[in-house]
Amino acid sequence: MEGAQAAEWDRRKQQELYALLKRRGFVWPSFEIYGGVAGFYDLGPLGSVLKDNIESAWKRTFLVEEGFMQVDCPSISPETVFRSSGHLEKFSDIMTRCVSCSAPFRADHLLSDAGIDAVDLTAEVMGTYLTEKDVRCPSCGGTLGPVEEFNLMFKTHIGPGTDRPAYLRPETAQSIFMDFSMLYRSNRERVPFGVAQLGKGYRNEISPRQGLLRQREFHMAEGEFFFDPLERTFPPFSTNRDRSVPLLMASDPERTVEMPLGRAVEDGIICSEVLAHFMGVTHRFVLSIGIPRAAMRFRQHGRKEMAHYANDCWDLEVLTSSGWVEMVGIADRSAYDLSQHARGSGCDLTALRRFTTPRTKEAVKVRTDKKVLGPLFKARAKEVDELLCGTGSAELERMRSSGTIQLVLKDGSSVNVPASAFSFETVTETVQGERYTPHVVEPSFGIDRLMVAVLEHSYVETASSPMKESDKDEDGDGGPYRVMRFLPSVAPIKCGVFPLLPKDNLPELALKLSSELRSAGLAVHYDPSGSIGRRYARMDEVGTPFALTVDHRTLEDGTVTIRDRDTGEQRRLRSSDAARKVLDLVQCSTAFSDL
Amino acid sequence: MEGAQAAEWDRRKQQELYALLKRRGFVWPSFEIYGGVAGFYDLGPLGSVLKDNIESAWKRTFLVEEGFMQVDCPSISPETVFRSSGHLEKFSDIMTRCVSCSAPFRADHLLSDAGIDAVDLTAEVMGTYLTEKDVRCPSCGGTLGPVEEFNLMFKTHIGPGTDRPAYLRPETAQSIFMDFSMLYRSNRERVPFGVAQLGKGYRNEISPRQGLLRQREFHMAEGEFFFDPLERTFPPFSTNRDRSVPLLMASDPERTVEMPLGRAVEDGIICSEVLAHFMGVTHRFVLSIGIPRAAMRFRQHGRKEMAHYANDCWDLEVLTSSGWVEMVGIADRSAYDLSQHARGSGCDLTALRRFTTPRTKEAVKVRTDKKVLGPLFKARAKEVDELLCGTGSAELERMRSSGTIQLVLKDGSSVNVPASAFSFETVTETVQGERYTPHVVEPSFGIDRLMVAVLEHSYVETASSPMKESDKDEDGDGGPYRVMRFLPSVAPIKCGVFPLLPKDNLPELALKLSSELRSAGLAVHYDPSGSIGRRYARMDEVGTPFALTVDHRTLEDGTVTIRDRDTGEQRRLRSSDAARKVLDLVQCSTAFSDL
Repeated sequence: MEGAQAAEWDRRKQQELYALLKRRGFVWPSFEIYGGVAGFYDLGPLGSVLKDNIESAWKRTFLVEEGFMQVDCPSISPETVFRSSGHLEKFSDIMTRCVSCSAPFRADHLLSDAGIDAVDLTAEVMGTYLTEKDVRCPSCGGTLGPVEEFNLMFKTHIGPGTDRPAYLRPETAQSIFMDFSMLYRSNRERVPFGVAQLGKGYRNEISPRQGLLRQREFHMAEGEFFFDPLERTFPPFSTNRDRSVPLLMASDPERTVEMPLGRAVEDGIICSEVLAHFMGVTHRFVLSIGIPRAAMRFRQHGRKEMAHYANDCWDLEVLTSSGWVEMVGIADRSAYDLSQHARGSGCDLTALRRFTTPRTKEAVKVRTDKKVLGPLFKARAKEVDELLCGTGSAELERMRSSGTIQLVLKDGSSVNVPASAFSFETVTETVQGERYTPHVVEPSFGIDRLMVAVLEHSYVETASSPMKESDKDEDGDGGPYRVMRFLPSVAPIKCGVFPLLPKDNLPELALKLSSELRSAGLAVHYDPSGSIGRRYARMDEVGTPFALTVDHRTLEDGTVTIRDRDTGEQRRLRSSDAARKVLDLVQCSTAFSDL
Repeated sequence: MEGAQAAEWDRRKQQELYALLKRRGFVWPSFEIYGGVAGFYDLGPLGSVLKDNIESAWKRTFLVEEGFMQVDCPSISPETVFRSSGHLEKFSDIMTRCVSCSAPFRADHLLSDAGIDAVDLTAEVMGTYLTEKDVRCPSCGGTLGPVEEFNLMFKTHIGPGTDRPAYLRPETAQSIFMDFSMLYRSNRERVPFGVAQLGKGYRNEISPRQGLLRQREFHMAEGEFFFDPLERTFPPFSTNRDRSVPLLMASDPERTVEMPLGRAVEDGIICSEVLAHFMGVTHRFVLSIGIPRAAMRFRQHGRKEMAHYANDCWDLEVLTSSGWVEMVGIADRSAYDLSQHARGSGCDLTALRRFTTPRTKEAVKVRTDKKVLGPLFKARAKEVDELLCGTGSAELERMRSSGTIQLVLKDGSSVNVPASAFSFETVTETVQGERYTPHVVEPSFGIDRLMVAVLEHSYVETASSPMKESDKDEDGDGGPYRVMRFLPSVAPIKCGVFPLLPKDNLPELALKLSSELRSAGLAVHYDPSGSIGRRYARMDEVGTPFALTVDHRTLEDGTVTIRDRDTGEQRRLRSSDAARKVLDLVQCSTAFSDL
């Protein structure tokens, strides 16, 4: 299966598709009139709507169905944020520059081109290998300079001057961690809960190579699901327990095993019900945008690949023309992120674990004697009193046994307190719960990559064409007949509307029909010109699932033709019902065959 | 009217609203755990969805109804883009720094605080005034340093090193201009057409003051409508010709005049039907998200305020607690942007103006004589032939009359060509059209500002509350009863779902109902706890238009109670119809009173 699919993606087919994507306005390189800049792409009229539709499906899954809260935070963050998150120290690649033409390169890429697997090598070792193998500049053949770390965050400064360094976020997640307390309150101080953010992420690649798959600026959708690690069961998992998914385990990375998620948890393959649940949600979502089941697998990270704090991590990979590519990462990041930001900011980022029944606890409290403190310290008696209570019984006990009880007041002066000024008392306290740092499972989606996967898996070349021979001449590109088989829910245009001929009031009727469909919220393309076969072909090429044609019979009985993209089948329906019917077809509440 | 509304926004009410916005998760300052950074805000769970809903309404207006194409381009652009656009030179404010504490300030703000109107003053004059008036640092009282220009674009670098400077876009428009040719082709080489982009804009304010209205990173929605300036009529304007709007003309900036857009064009007040059309579209859109008609006006820019290339410019202003604030700018920018990028890039950014009937044109062509060229130039005859044709008749005529016809070949050598090698011929050519640079009308929307306006105009304090006295005690904040009267289309939550009591299977039924509403795509809040009055109050405070309650009668006859936020009125409907009915209410296809 794998070999067959990959082989299908021959170079010619890939080129046909990417030429189509540019020609028809899905995607093209940015700044092309100025020569372009690697790693930046524009989404054109069709691509931007396709991306919007994938994001809408994601929101429906995570916000509406899974009940995540959403936030929308700045893409610029001050340096201190990334000091806590670890990005300032660790979000880097190893680079070298050509001494002659000064072009920058990723050292691991140069080594891999020279046949050396550079994964996990230190900068120093990479440098040694580059010298040993006499690797040269791929652009000009020049000598390479020393290797060095390059932080991949785009740097800028807030306000004038350079005293407030800031970076463009490499991921959207950090703002959710920073907002934890606000979100916890928004959820009325209950855990678990999920928070999602969609938006741009940035990665200042040294020398990007992989086109659409490795952009410097990209669209992300991330969820952070906060939960109590002591809760071993997760009731919503019942919706995914029986879902069978293909797993490529770290313990056996050669063989994909199909298995229900429930069993994978029971067998200790996936670390928790929460993680498995979001693998299930991810699987369902990726299927729902049109990626075939057989082109997906979950690959588990090995210990070396995973961050030290992570408990478990699975990538959803999709088979594309570039092989298996990570689309989604689903990681159990433990309490790492909240702990780091709590430490970095000094703020409390914990939740309350409520005891089922309140517990009682014995505590030793300090009881002061105002009759002693008053005469002794006069105006300062209140401050000394508060200091004694704040110091705590253990410390006072230590001081008392060492012979001197000395306290430092706010004004910097010290006072000696006699032991008679306080006593200890054992009290019983009722405790409602205890504070803890929630753990987090993070499903993180690369929206552009998913879009690429949808485009590739929707692209079909067929022998059957709705065009006559004369239509083909008109087009004249002589290529194969191309169809984008988008699911109706993600298709950028839902319906074409055509007058059969540019006369006899047919254009006016077709325009009226277009406007009815638009009022129902449907993206419509009105096209009055060319043979009808050519117009169907234009719609097939951009994946429009349905087309309505107004013809002379419309004038007689008020019906129009509706055509199904994938079968070429045609039916007639009342023009006045068309908007409703097309809406039902797009929402899959009606099948074409039931029209 | 104006005075009354502004007065209504007393300080207390403003504070109540902004406390509500933070408490209930609409909006809060970013990076608060790290002390915050001025000019950055996070949209919380309710704010981010409110913003999404405003953007969806915008897309429906511009993409679906007006038929604009959409693009989605990077927020980072290389420096060369902003050299062409003029931002590198002109997108700046005048600043000064305190010599003692080095805090930066906008010079015009300091002068305005000192009672001097600094609009239109040069940096030099501002510096003189600051010295003359002995203006001091507002933070520490220190002396102010020299004034200087500060470019307001956030600067960064693409890739390693500093040889590729880049900036975060101050507006989304530039990428649309750069993509003109691709978009023109996408529209099958027809003008007019519109292109829209939504996304982040950035403005590195020196020292931001106005809270949510003046952010360093903000959400924009911009449209660029390309048209032929020779076309004086614009057929789609028929939909807006009779729309009456309040105009504050540059010629009479004290008095707002209500007038149909058609008349404003006829009277020469608005420069074109295209511009007037998009003022109409803007007016309709802003009404549709819930801004009252009486709180809007269009203010025309005076000649001094407008860029030199602009033909006309109108701001849609809304009355807020900060007075009249610009929400949308609608400008006729002539051919400026396309011309600048054509010049900067050397690329052709023109369109073809097709003649109604092809025109004929006489032209003098060069006709060469191969019988002369062949023997004379042998292997180089073809190159000489091409050079002669390429040189053109006028230049050859000039050379011939000067006596020597000398051509320079590719290899640098020159040849002398005899006059007998060519002759001139007058031919008649058919010309289908002529190239021209389209003009552009740009409606540019500040989405965050519109959100602030929606929030302020939706906020109502009432005397009538659904809560009993005991409920109020439970809440305990003692403030006024607060309702956000969002239109259903923009409300972040569409419906609350409550079980009357936490027993007798009512929660299970209510959860089932919630999930039916969610499947219909409705954002629902399920709330099982607190008195029913308190639960209504929580929903009123975040502007949820409807609430469904499952009670004991539901067990008997399958009906539930639906409550209308604004009237408090209640009806009963079948639980199985609830999703459909609420959807109809939200889409305003059913009125509550018709339930």
